[in-house]
Amino acid sequence: MSEEIQNNQVIELLLNHKSIRKYEDKIVPDNLVETIIKAGQQAAFAFQVYSVLLSRKNENHPFHAPLYFIICIDLHKIGKIMEKRNWKLIMNDISCLMLGLQDAAYMAQNMVIAAESLGLGTCYIGSVPYYADKITESFKLPPKVFPLVGLTIGYPAENPPIRPRYPMEFVLFEDEYPEFDEKTINKAMKKMDEGYLSQDYYKNLNAKIKLIVDRDETFDLDNYSWIEHISRKLGQWDPSPQKMLEQFQKRGFDLEDKSK
Amino acid sequence: MSEEIQNNQVIELLLNHKSIRKYEDKIVPDNLVETIIKAGQQAAFAFQVYSVLLSRKNENHPFHAPLYFIICIDLHKIGKIMEKRNWKLIMNDISCLMLGLQDAAYMAQNMVIAAESLGLGTCYIGSVPYYADKITESFKLPPKVFPLVGLTIGYPAENPPIRPRYPMEFVLFEDEYPEFDEKTINKAMKKMDEGYLSQDYYKNLNAKIKLIVDRDETFDLDNYSWIEHISRKLGQWDPSPQKMLEQFQKRGFDLEDKSK
Repeated sequence: MSEEIQNNQVIELLLNHKSIRKYEDKIVPDNLVETIIKAGQQAAFAFQVYSVLLSRKNENHPFHAPLYFIICIDLHKIGKIMEKRNWKLIMNDISCLMLGLQDAAYMAQNMVIAAESLGLGTCYIGSVPYYADKITESFKLPPKVFPLVGLTIGYPAENPPIRPRYPMEFVLFEDEYPEFDEKTINKAMKKMDEGYLSQDYYKNLNAKIKLIVDRDETFDLDNYSWIEHISRKLGQWDPSPQKMLEQFQKRGFDLEDKSK
Repeated sequence: MSEEIQNNQVIELLLNHKSIRKYEDKIVPDNLVETIIKAGQQAAFAFQVYSVLLSRKNENHPFHAPLYFIICIDLHKIGKIMEKRNWKLIMNDISCLMLGLQDAAYMAQNMVIAAESLGLGTCYIGSVPYYADKITESFKLPPKVFPLVGLTIGYPAENPPIRPRYPMEFVLFEDEYPEFDEKTINKAMKKMDEGYLSQDYYKNLNAKIKLIVDRDETFDLDNYSWIEHISRKLGQWDPSPQKMLEQFQKRGFDLEDKSK
């Protein structure tokens, strides 16, 4: 390894990321919270169209984490600012969401990295968009603010192994996207399945998803792994966009082409 | 400052981020590219539904950067994997895009941070989704792969100042989203406008956007700043979702509710 890579605390931190789902009952000091937010704020943004909600009422939080953040796409604030200058936001909602989603996600990922560097653990909560209406109620969100992702933060009370990832040749493509041969696909599947099985990941979480389509159950927690888990989500859940579209509509975002 | 924050190389790096738009004509070694991708891959993902395209033909790149990455949402790969197990991807495209956009964005942000820690500079290219069809042609993308964001990487040939951000009280909201008073909005606007003006940001880039709506031009490069710039984008550009929807449709993503 070259000099830049060896003893590089940043690379080491990124390579050692793991999501933390058990937290110590210990308060995170305010100056750490501030540092996490400030570090997040320096990410590269399109329009800074994000906001961060914070709750410290840990009895309601996922994993009872001491801190629960919800990172939102926020077109409300910039609308207020534009109003002051007599401008009206006219960019269509899909383009705004594409920008806002990235602004919010870059903020969130910087927060994760900053928190980990401070000795804290983190876990994303991806189901947040499905509960946009409930979050709106509880945080009194104005229209044009959309909760994108939850983020629990606290001192870790577990030390899980680093989770498997696809082989690099299944991720990085130079000049041309390849046609995958059987070997490449099988290798990627094997790496994911065997990796998670060797860590007893789904067994420890007792996280087997029920079959709701007409298929024979051939998996128990001894052979159920990543591919089957992801397949049961993408192959069974949420076939209609209606629920997600409704959440966007309720928040003041229209995803349809009205010119039709 | 507490001990965790002082001498924390990760926090220091995050706080010192700046986008780099001028690069040295110097090749980035392969082991650094690999490290950047590996560090990216360890981000927390929902479904690992992303791919990274790479071009080293710098004559075509934004800012002639030696490396140009395009981070994509990729539902093609997981579809191939599910096929091998006799599963079919049935989750609706909007939910898939919400997950995929985050997977791709977390990858991208980790790549930025890893690259910077290796002494490299980076800049996001946000216009990529509008050219999804052209990128598809050049990289021979299969359906269900959507280019989300471009990322130039190379050795920096400039050292710009750190760019202004909103005050923290305009970003972080505990328990309840506030109603902003004039003072808070004005303070945020002032921080952004005066910050960018003091750096001659738009003057140096010669980046004033032309007025296309019916308004008197009252700005020159001596008073044109962030608020006016963003307002001219969000207040003038891309009112119809048609172009963006077409790009999604061409890539095999349907954003409409067919049940209607």
